[in-house]
Amino acid sequence: MALVVQKYGGTSVANAERIRAVAQRVVARKKAGDRLVVVLSARAGETDRLIQMGREIAPNPDPREMDVLLSTGEQVTIALFSMAVKDMGCNAVSMTGYQAGIITNRSYGQARIHWIETLPVMDQIQEDKIVVVAGFQGYDDEGNITTLGRGGSDTTAVALAAALGADMCEIYTDVEGVFTTDPNVYAKARKLEKVSYEEMLEMASMGAKVLHLRSVEFGMKYNVPIMVLSSFIDAPGTLVTKEDEEMEKVVVSGITYNKNEARITLTNVPDQPGMAARLFKAVSDAKVNIDLIVQGSGSIPGRANISFTVPRPDYEKTKAVAQRVAEEIDAGVVHSNPAIAKISVIGVGMRSHTGVASRMFDALAAENINIKMIATSEIKISCIIDEKYTELAVRVLHDTFELDKPPHERIKIRQEH
Amino acid sequence: MALVVQKYGGTSVANAERIRAVAQRVVARKKAGDRLVVVLSARAGETDRLIQMGREIAPNPDPREMDVLLSTGEQVTIALFSMAVKDMGCNAVSMTGYQAGIITNRSYGQARIHWIETLPVMDQIQEDKIVVVAGFQGYDDEGNITTLGRGGSDTTAVALAAALGADMCEIYTDVEGVFTTDPNVYAKARKLEKVSYEEMLEMASMGAKVLHLRSVEFGMKYNVPIMVLSSFIDAPGTLVTKEDEEMEKVVVSGITYNKNEARITLTNVPDQPGMAARLFKAVSDAKVNIDLIVQGSGSIPGRANISFTVPRPDYEKTKAVAQRVAEEIDAGVVHSNPAIAKISVIGVGMRSHTGVASRMFDALAAENINIKMIATSEIKISCIIDEKYTELAVRVLHDTFELDKPPHERIKIRQEH
Repeated sequence: MALVVQKYGGTSVANAERIRAVAQRVVARKKAGDRLVVVLSARAGETDRLIQMGREIAPNPDPREMDVLLSTGEQVTIALFSMAVKDMGCNAVSMTGYQAGIITNRSYGQARIHWIETLPVMDQIQEDKIVVVAGFQGYDDEGNITTLGRGGSDTTAVALAAALGADMCEIYTDVEGVFTTDPNVYAKARKLEKVSYEEMLEMASMGAKVLHLRSVEFGMKYNVPIMVLSSFIDAPGTLVTKEDEEMEKVVVSGITYNKNEARITLTNVPDQPGMAARLFKAVSDAKVNIDLIVQGSGSIPGRANISFTVPRPDYEKTKAVAQRVAEEIDAGVVHSNPAIAKISVIGVGMRSHTGVASRMFDALAAENINIKMIATSEIKISCIIDEKYTELAVRVLHDTFELDKPPHERIKIRQEH
Repeated sequence: MALVVQKYGGTSVANAERIRAVAQRVVARKKAGDRLVVVLSARAGETDRLIQMGREIAPNPDPREMDVLLSTGEQVTIALFSMAVKDMGCNAVSMTGYQAGIITNRSYGQARIHWIETLPVMDQIQEDKIVVVAGFQGYDDEGNITTLGRGGSDTTAVALAAALGADMCEIYTDVEGVFTTDPNVYAKARKLEKVSYEEMLEMASMGAKVLHLRSVEFGMKYNVPIMVLSSFIDAPGTLVTKEDEEMEKVVVSGITYNKNEARITLTNVPDQPGMAARLFKAVSDAKVNIDLIVQGSGSIPGRANISFTVPRPDYEKTKAVAQRVAEEIDAGVVHSNPAIAKISVIGVGMRSHTGVASRMFDALAAENINIKMIATSEIKISCIIDEKYTELAVRVLHDTFELDKPPHERIKIRQEH
C-alpha cells in the first residue's frame, strides 16, 4: 500500500467536467489500494483573474493582501474536488495550506517552504481519506497567508511527499512527460523514461515548463522520486530521480531553447581592473539579472569587448544603463540585440564524455548558424545564436545526437578519461 | 477614542468602485480618531455563484466542503478592501474567520459562534491598524472552516463587538435604518430612531430583512448597541438597544408582513386526545416547521377544525401529509390556501397597553379584510389574511396607529393596568 502524492495543474481542474474526470481517476487509484494525497492548483485562468481584480483596486496591491486574495483560487478547487470525490462515494477532506501545516517564510508572493507539520495530513490519511491539499500556499509563523509564486503547486507536492516520506510524487500536467526537446518545435522529440534531478534542473532553468524549478531542487535535496505524467492520456510518464549508472551512459538527454533573453555588448572597454565590476554593479542596481557573460579582445589593442545577456523584458532598461556606463568608463559603442536565443545541450553523461561541444559547434556551423556566445557547465553546453535559427538549431542538434532513438541504439561518442 | 465594529454588506462592496468608496469612509473615520474593526460580506451575487459552482460538481455538495468553498467569498472581499485602505495610506490588515479567532460549533452551513479568541484582533488594533475581518465564517475546535448561514456577517460583527467590548456595532446596509413598515409598500413609513432588541427580533423573524435574527439575539444577550445605517447615504440610522422607559410609551413600533406562508385546514377532526399530536408529528417527520396553529369547532358537533401555517415552499408536501392523516383519523375534507399573508403589529408598549388588538381587528374589518387566524405574544399581534389584501392591510394599520407621526404626536391609546 504505497503512499503517493499527486499534483494536478490548473488545466486539469479547469471546469466541473474535468474536476469530475480527475476525481474519477483518483477514486479508482484509491480503490486499487494506494493511500493518496492530492495537491491542486487554481483553475486555469483563475489566478490571472484574481490578480486583475487586485489591480483594479490598487495599482500596486499590498503583497500580504495579494496573497490572501490569490490563495482563494486553490481553496475553491480543493473544495470542488473533494465534493466530487465524496459524491463518488469515497471519503475525502480538503485542507488549505494552513490546515495542511505548510509553514513558509514571509516573502509574500514568493514564499519558501520552511517546514511541514505533517500531523494534520497524517491524521486524515490514517482515517483512510483522500487528502486534498491546496497547492501554492502556506502560512508564516505568525499565521499570515503566503503564496509560493507561479508554479508553486509543484513545490507543495514535492515538499509534502518529502515530509510525509511518500513513495512517489506524481505531477500530472498537460504534457505526457519530459521530452528530448519541445515536441512543438520538433515532432521527432522522444519522451524520456528517466531523467536525473540535475538534468531536470538545467532543463527547468532553461525554460522547459514541465516542472517548477524549486520543486526539482526539493526533490533532489530529499531524494523524492517525481513522475511527470499527462492528466489527459493514460501513458507512462518520465521519472525524475537521482543519477544512476544507466543515465551516465547517455551522453545527451535533451536540447532546450530559450527565446526570452537579449544580448548587450560593450566594445573596447579599457582593460583595467574594476571596469567589468562597475558595469555589472550598475546593471544589478537596476534589478536586472544577468545570465551569460563573455569577455574577449576588443578591436583596439589593450581593450576588451564584454557581452552579456539579460531577460528580454529588461532589455531597454539595461541598454540605457550600459550606454551610461560606457560613456563613464570611456568604452566604445554599445551593440545590442534583443532577437537572440539560447540553445542548450544537456546530459549528465557529459561529465565522463568529451567531444560533445565540438559536435555541437560543428553541427551548427554546417547549417551556417553563427555562435555568438558560449557557456558551459558540467552537464550543459549553451550557445547564443540569432533567434531566427532557433527551430533549425534544435532540429539539427536533435538529429546530431540521435535523440529520436532509444539511448542504446545511438552511435557512441568518443570517450576520453 | 471609541472602539467601533462596522459591518458592510454585499451590495456595499459589490465592485472595485464601491469598495474604494467604503474604504474612503472608513479611512476618514479612522483619521477622526476611532479605532475600527470592519466586518465584510462577500460581494453581492458571489455566494450564489459559488453555490451554483458546487452544485455543478455534485447535486448535494458535501456540507464541509461547501463551507470551504463559500468562505472564499469573504476572503476575496477582505483582501481587496485592505488593499484599498492601504493604497489610501492607512494601515490595515485582513483576517479570515480563522485568523480572527472566531470559533464555532461544527454545524456546517449554519454554525453558531461558541466564543471568540480576541487576542489576534486586539494585537492588530494595538498596532493602530484597521482590522478587516471576514464575516459569515469561523472554524471549529478541529480547525475545520465553518459558515454561519445567510446573513451571518451581521452575527460576526455583533459577536466581535461583544467580545471586544466595543462601544458600538454599526451595520451598514442598503436601507437607511429600521422603518415602521416596508417603505416599498407604504411611502409614509417612518425611520425609527430607536428600537428595542425584542421588537427587532420580532421584526426580523417576521421577515424584515434589515438584521439577521441571530445577530439581534447576540446583541440582546451581551447588550451591544447596534446602529443600522445606509452605506450609501450619510444620514442617521436606527439604534437597536435595550428597552427603556421612552420606548415603553410607544405602543406600536412597526407593522410587518410575511407572504411566505401557506395555510392548511383539517375539518371535522374527531375530538379525541392525540389527534392533533398525530397530525403535527407527521408534519414534523416531513421536516416542515409549523408557524401558527388555531383550533376551532367543526361543523359536526364534537368535532374540531385544525388550521396551521407552514413555509410556502413546503406547501405541496404538507398538503399531501395532511390528506393522508385526515384519511387515517377519519377527519373531514382538507382545505388549503397558499395565497395568505401574515400581518403583524409589534411594540414593547403593548405589555402595558391594551386595546391594540381590538383597534387592529376593527381597522381590518372596516376594509372588509377577513381575518383567518390570529396569534399573539407579549409584544406582537399577528393576523393571517388573504394575500391580496397585504398592502392594503399594511397601509390601514400604519394609518390606524399613526406610525407616520413622531411618537409623542400620536393619539394616546386607552391604557389599562
